[in-house]
Amino acid sequence: MSALKLMRCSSCPRLRASIGIGSVRHAASKPRHDYDLVVLGGGSAGLACAKEAADCGARVLCFDFVKPSPAGTRWGIGGTCVNVGCIPKKLMHQASLLGEAVHEAVAYGWNVNDQDLRPDWRKLVRSVQNHIKSVNWVTRVDLRDKKVEYVNSLGAFLDPHTIEYATRSGLERRQVTAEHVVVAVGGRPRYPDIPGAVELGITSDDIFSYEREPGRTLVVGAGYVGLECACFLKGLGYEPTVMVRSIVLRGFDRQMSELLAAMMAERGVPFLGTTIPRSVERQADGRLLVRYHNTATGADGSDVFDTVLWAIGRRGLVEDLHLPAAGVRTHGDKIVVDAAEATSVPHIFAVGDIVYGRPELTPVAILAGRLLARRLCVGMSEETAIELRGADNIEVLHGYYKPTEFFIPQKSVRHCYLKAVAEISGDQKILGLHYIGPVAGEVIQGFAAALKSGLTVKTLLSTVGIHPTTAEEFTRLSITKRSGRDPTPASCCS
Amino acid sequence: MSALKLMRCSSCPRLRASIGIGSVRHAASKPRHDYDLVVLGGGSAGLACAKEAADCGARVLCFDFVKPSPAGTRWGIGGTCVNVGCIPKKLMHQASLLGEAVHEAVAYGWNVNDQDLRPDWRKLVRSVQNHIKSVNWVTRVDLRDKKVEYVNSLGAFLDPHTIEYATRSGLERRQVTAEHVVVAVGGRPRYPDIPGAVELGITSDDIFSYEREPGRTLVVGAGYVGLECACFLKGLGYEPTVMVRSIVLRGFDRQMSELLAAMMAERGVPFLGTTIPRSVERQADGRLLVRYHNTATGADGSDVFDTVLWAIGRRGLVEDLHLPAAGVRTHGDKIVVDAAEATSVPHIFAVGDIVYGRPELTPVAILAGRLLARRLCVGMSEETAIELRGADNIEVLHGYYKPTEFFIPQKSVRHCYLKAVAEISGDQKILGLHYIGPVAGEVIQGFAAALKSGLTVKTLLSTVGIHPTTAEEFTRLSITKRSGRDPTPASCCS
Repeated sequence: MSALKLMRCSSCPRLRASIGIGSVRHAASKPRHDYDLVVLGGGSAGLACAKEAADCGARVLCFDFVKPSPAGTRWGIGGTCVNVGCIPKKLMHQASLLGEAVHEAVAYGWNVNDQDLRPDWRKLVRSVQNHIKSVNWVTRVDLRDKKVEYVNSLGAFLDPHTIEYATRSGLERRQVTAEHVVVAVGGRPRYPDIPGAVELGITSDDIFSYEREPGRTLVVGAGYVGLECACFLKGLGYEPTVMVRSIVLRGFDRQMSELLAAMMAERGVPFLGTTIPRSVERQADGRLLVRYHNTATGADGSDVFDTVLWAIGRRGLVEDLHLPAAGVRTHGDKIVVDAAEATSVPHIFAVGDIVYGRPELTPVAILAGRLLARRLCVGMSEETAIELRGADNIEVLHGYYKPTEFFIPQKSVRHCYLKAVAEISGDQKILGLHYIGPVAGEVIQGFAAALKSGLTVKTLLSTVGIHPTTAEEFTRLSITKRSGRDPTPASCCS
Repeated sequence: MSALKLMRCSSCPRLRASIGIGSVRHAASKPRHDYDLVVLGGGSAGLACAKEAADCGARVLCFDFVKPSPAGTRWGIGGTCVNVGCIPKKLMHQASLLGEAVHEAVAYGWNVNDQDLRPDWRKLVRSVQNHIKSVNWVTRVDLRDKKVEYVNSLGAFLDPHTIEYATRSGLERRQVTAEHVVVAVGGRPRYPDIPGAVELGITSDDIFSYEREPGRTLVVGAGYVGLECACFLKGLGYEPTVMVRSIVLRGFDRQMSELLAAMMAERGVPFLGTTIPRSVERQADGRLLVRYHNTATGADGSDVFDTVLWAIGRRGLVEDLHLPAAGVRTHGDKIVVDAAEATSVPHIFAVGDIVYGRPELTPVAILAGRLLARRLCVGMSEETAIELRGADNIEVLHGYYKPTEFFIPQKSVRHCYLKAVAEISGDQKILGLHYIGPVAGEVIQGFAAALKSGLTVKTLLSTVGIHPTTAEEFTRLSITKRSGRDPTPASCCS
């Protein structure tokens, strides 16, 4: 297995990992190690890698272990995406959309009572968790079928080729040796260093299995995790407030990010801008008093919530791996790898969220996929395009639009907007596409493939529109930002 | 206006028409005709053409007139798409989906009563018609803004440069002359030549403004219009039956078409195969007795319906145009044009549904857009690819998949299927993509742009999946038909 090649992966998309196994073992020679490959971490990245290697004939062992969150939440094999990420988030988002759909159904003439519409939070959580459990189960069956050994324990380096772990009972420590090791332990949410944070707050690790209704919720952090949680909580009828330290969705296209925040605000999600939390205390009535500070005005304030959810970022889970024993180089809480995913130790690789620093493009696409908050991008932001190419060398086509299906329930179209960032010369190669509107992920996926195929403005505008969809609005872009013309739809509302 | 260039257009997509106006008029010279351009027909094709020409400085007159349907339905400017096609169809489809969503909302835990769920047909029709009227109105304002004159009358040729029409009162006939004429009168549904068809049946011209509930409905014809109507009627709780003369969705990929019919049948839409209608009679109780004949078995049968809807095809509206007076060549009920949309008379052009015969690709994309029945294609069908390239030179990748959001309401995933038809050699250029699943039009639009950009299997499979969407399933295709491997998802249900 001289050339272990893994595509860029993350905990989020089910990655495709291609492992080229060279002359691993000669039939006659006794293997030097217990396993050809040990994978630390059974999330999307680790599992894909383990299964691919096993398919190629390698003897593979996969460790997966979830330390309970401070609030006590634990889960099974499959990693962040399946258990506390994309999948439960999508289901909560879907639940939230369906509540909206009930109101829309009334507008379309269905004889349903949409007064006092409330979700049964416990039933929803149970349904979500049942689905996750079924995925956990299928994952284990799949590993067995593919002859990947699985140990539900925390593996750590004893030396560069030896992994030590505790048995299930915890009474005994065992060791296995591996020719190659892949570290794919992923990350977990951070907590702020303020009084009450760990004891009284929860994170995205907890919300999808939270036993009581979240109620009035303070979401601290305006990255995609925070905004997504705020969106589905709002849709489910709770009252989220978003606390933003500096800007929403750092790293994304600024215009689209601000537009998204404006849309959320219009729908009744308050934002506490330039604000940081100071402390969380439990009141006598059981609710949570949060004190905070506005860094711009200098003002202090406080408010009372039922739930405080930290969404201030994630950290890599390096600390329990005993990486120094293997000599693996780290940067903060992440592992440094080269272009072939190798760490500073040639037979040890790292994949997924534990990996330090990556070109921005792929993560942006991945983040975008996670963001169901009706906003999506593929490719470069307008800022990045200007920075890399110069403002004179790019053309931005943009427009507001009105989804046909929004008219009858009179849904607000104010934030339905899209834009294409392109080279200004020639056929105008497209550098980025940005979209706020219904089913954003479904709309943007095909355009992601188009961008990879060298989509130009010329080709985009000559693509036959599939009518009436919102996706076709990309084929109808005609107004450049440079022209200063009004991008609101003047005439056509069909 | 020597070079009148119009892109391929149809009544369905809002076409982009580009008219190059050369040296139309020299400021000094008096124009020889009343107008530079007269457009016959104010549908998508005609309006786009008229507005584009006016933008270029031409003096434009547009005629639009709707003959009432046999059932008495009439409508305003905008043509089929806006009035009796895509737009009302999309809204009825949306209404149908929202009924489904109410049931799903219950599964996700919302406290809504979904027993005895029924739509208020009249309220729905009123909402749909109100939207259409607003579009009609905006269209008229837009024409006025763009300085396109509009006459609500039926224009017909008196000679190659003269159009005659009746005034509003009908008392007077007037004439105008034009340097160029564009015929864009579109088409209307056909009726079968059997007793009772015209008197007792309706068509898609009538259903979207139908005053009474359709009830048990016989849909005759299994093209996209018939299947779409059957789908939304079923979703609205009526009981459609589809009568099929030979095959469903002629001209589409056979496998996808049969899969779609199977899905509809599973959802409770009966199909009467190899069957043709013989007669329609009104019974004493007011319901309609339909006699029919099975051409395969020779058996005769009959059944009683509340509504009979003909969806057996459409005819071009050539008959009232007095085309012989202009010398325009026709083929059946369509007009013959060259690659530049010119008819046999060089200054007379034809665009939209009135045009005879076209390469299949664009119309397929257009049809696909109309078909909201959860099935979509872009590019070549598998049959066409085999015919044009040879079975040995194409590779078909396919797979069933399970949309994440289907699990909780336990929706059937049996017919969620997609495939890519590609060249077998090199990077495997993709020839066609086919998809059955949620929001098909939104999913396929971006891929249409990708196909135009030269998408290959290699690029498709290296595109980052946006997780969890159904569109990303295209990026995960791994099983070739040639391999004979099972395309059902064995392991992953996340």
